Amino acid sequence: MKISDLPTPCLILDRARLLHNIDAMAEILARHAIPLRPHMKTAKSIDVARLALAGQPGGITVSTLAEAEYFSAHGITDILLAVGITEKKLEQVGKLNAAGGEIMVITDDIGIAGIIADHPTPPRALIEIDTGEARGGVAPEDPALLAIGEKLGARLAGVMTHAGQSYAGRSPVEIAAIAEAERAGCVRAAQRLREAGHACAIVSVGSSPTARHAAGFQGVTEIRAGVYMFGDLFQAEIGTHAVHDIALTVLASVIGNRIDAKGAGRMLIDAGALALSKDRSTEAAPKDYGYGLVLDIAGQRAFGDACVGRAYQEHGVIEFSGDLFDIPIGGHVRIAPNHACLTAAAHDRYFVVEGDEVIAVWPRVNGW
Amino acid sequence: MKISDLPTPCLILDRARLLHNIDAMAEILARHAIPLRPHMKTAKSIDVARLALAGQPGGITVSTLAEAEYFSAHGITDILLAVGITEKKLEQVGKLNAAGGEIMVITDDIGIAGIIADHPTPPRALIEIDTGEARGGVAPEDPALLAIGEKLGARLAGVMTHAGQSYAGRSPVEIAAIAEAERAGCVRAAQRLREAGHACAIVSVGSSPTARHAAGFQGVTEIRAGVYMFGDLFQAEIGTHAVHDIALTVLASVIGNRIDAKGAGRMLIDAGALALSKDRSTEAAPKDYGYGLVLDIAGQRAFGDACVGRAYQEHGVIEFSGDLFDIPIGGHVRIAPNHACLTAAAHDRYFVVEGDEVIAVWPRVNGW
Repeated sequence: MKISDLPTPCLILDRARLLHNIDAMAEILARHAIPLRPHMKTAKSIDVARLALAGQPGGITVSTLAEAEYFSAHGITDILLAVGITEKKLEQVGKLNAAGGEIMVITDDIGIAGIIADHPTPPRALIEIDTGEARGGVAPEDPALLAIGEKLGARLAGVMTHAGQSYAGRSPVEIAAIAEAERAGCVRAAQRLREAGHACAIVSVGSSPTARHAAGFQGVTEIRAGVYMFGDLFQAEIGTHAVHDIALTVLASVIGNRIDAKGAGRMLIDAGALALSKDRSTEAAPKDYGYGLVLDIAGQRAFGDACVGRAYQEHGVIEFSGDLFDIPIGGHVRIAPNHACLTAAAHDRYFVVEGDEVIAVWPRVNGW
Repeated sequence: MKISDLPTPCLILDRARLLHNIDAMAEILARHAIPLRPHMKTAKSIDVARLALAGQPGGITVSTLAEAEYFSAHGITDILLAVGITEKKLEQVGKLNAAGGEIMVITDDIGIAGIIADHPTPPRALIEIDTGEARGGVAPEDPALLAIGEKLGARLAGVMTHAGQSYAGRSPVEIAAIAEAERAGCVRAAQRLREAGHACAIVSVGSSPTARHAAGFQGVTEIRAGVYMFGDLFQAEIGTHAVHDIALTVLASVIGNRIDAKGAGRMLIDAGALALSKDRSTEAAPKDYGYGLVLDIAGQRAFGDACVGRAYQEHGVIEFSGDLFDIPIGGHVRIAPNHACLTAAAHDRYFVVEGDEVIAVWPRVNGW
């Protein structure tokens, strides 16, 4: 089957680019001699997980219980559920662990730490550290850190942080500084816990940009990163990879194409807000790609900087001048996304391609 | 089962508000003595379709082939697929029609009109008219209109338009003017086709705002509208309904809640960009609700104008002052969405509630 035979809109995953991105990250982390616990929240696919785990210890990171259940069922047991746990979700984690999983949870709350410790089948837990993102987590110097560690007792497995503020970085130097704050803050939290007599085996940090640009990871035991596998326009803008490394695109059919008397063109495609997502990450980046960059059916940048400028539920609108798009109705384009995690989540499967050949269909585990 | 027993994040559909919204629209259109062909792109649910069809002729509008197939399989045969058709998609329409469907398609292209007419099992087709939105469609006075009608020949079933520019209206008066342009343009196109000797039985117009605020529908044969069933913050801002009419919310659990020494609070919930969508429709409205308005577990506006201000993949962040949110970790809130169509599409089912009781689970047909 060829790409041009696929129903539209659909998700295309370029296997060669995917492997390139996975290899590039593995190589960077190998230079630092630090292992990777790939974050599967972007790909949500066992097929992608297996590629990302090549040469790594075998543990993964997930963002939902649905992912935890799916990957457990596919034989991956060492899982970090990296969103603050609640009492109710502990029940499901308990069931999955009773069935052979080794799911770890995170918390920054002393009440939840007590509930974990008192649970009949308590999971191992990491304390979430805030190293500047101001989302979840306790600060490395917060007195609450030691109280939570005390409460978790034998269930304390370590500390983790995510310097999400790296997405606001705009140069390798800036991102390296954020990576250093991420590393130093997390290592400092581990040090305080250890000085208070607690074992703190895991010191887990990461985001794709900080993994890519950190000067070093002294004291860190593992890196978490996910979007690097696919890449997207926003990550390209902040220097995680190049635009031509983006492995994930949306295949769309042209459903309208006209040029008015003044030479103003308007091409409609059948990929709109649902197929592309309404993520506008690149709005804050040096270059704003609207709702995505238009590529040709081969995934090449054949139309310069042309973007999807408007996105209705099932219509994308590409405005252009002159005869840029000589594509008939029913012809194809591919759209590179602003934010791969959100675009992929609108689809239930990947059509994996090598050149113009569809070589596999890989399912995704969406929802919660 | 109670709302508080549900897994989070999930989609809550308030049955009483849904019925109120459906009744309100039916009443408005009954006053105009005009039938409704409800647009199922928002709800994508047979259970909702049955309610919306009460007292109506029985035809629906859809936005995807997946919807067309699903509703056909559930016994709704009169379907208008209201996104410009391609040759490839005609094949699937042909199959569904061969199995008993009566799916109609739309086009604004003479090439596609020819392909429809020459098809071995051609569907009936409506010509898409542009009445000011500048998306798809031919202008009412465009010479191409008659050429397309000629090409479609016996397959021509009528004309249709969607005045999507009504979303830019900010008062009932403005929207009524847009509704009149929508009506007049579509009726004019039908008149031109009839004058040229073509039958043009269907004159189909609509959007929820224009259906709500039009002064009249002379010459129109049916209205299409969809989002009115659920409502959302954007539709409330443009006067389609009130905020307290919004029937669709996302149930979320609190996963973090802290107030710093200065009284600045930050509450995290487990509904982020995936569960809420990144739609920011109200950014352009009089009141900007961020990524959604925070309601209590009963769906009441207990927290003033508090909104989800930041949305990460699985985290929503609500910033507040003082002691507004005295909700423990694991406690619940409900988030009213910017744009119901996009928020609903992130979920595969509705938990239908009456008061705090979950009375049904209704599936959705997502994807393409």
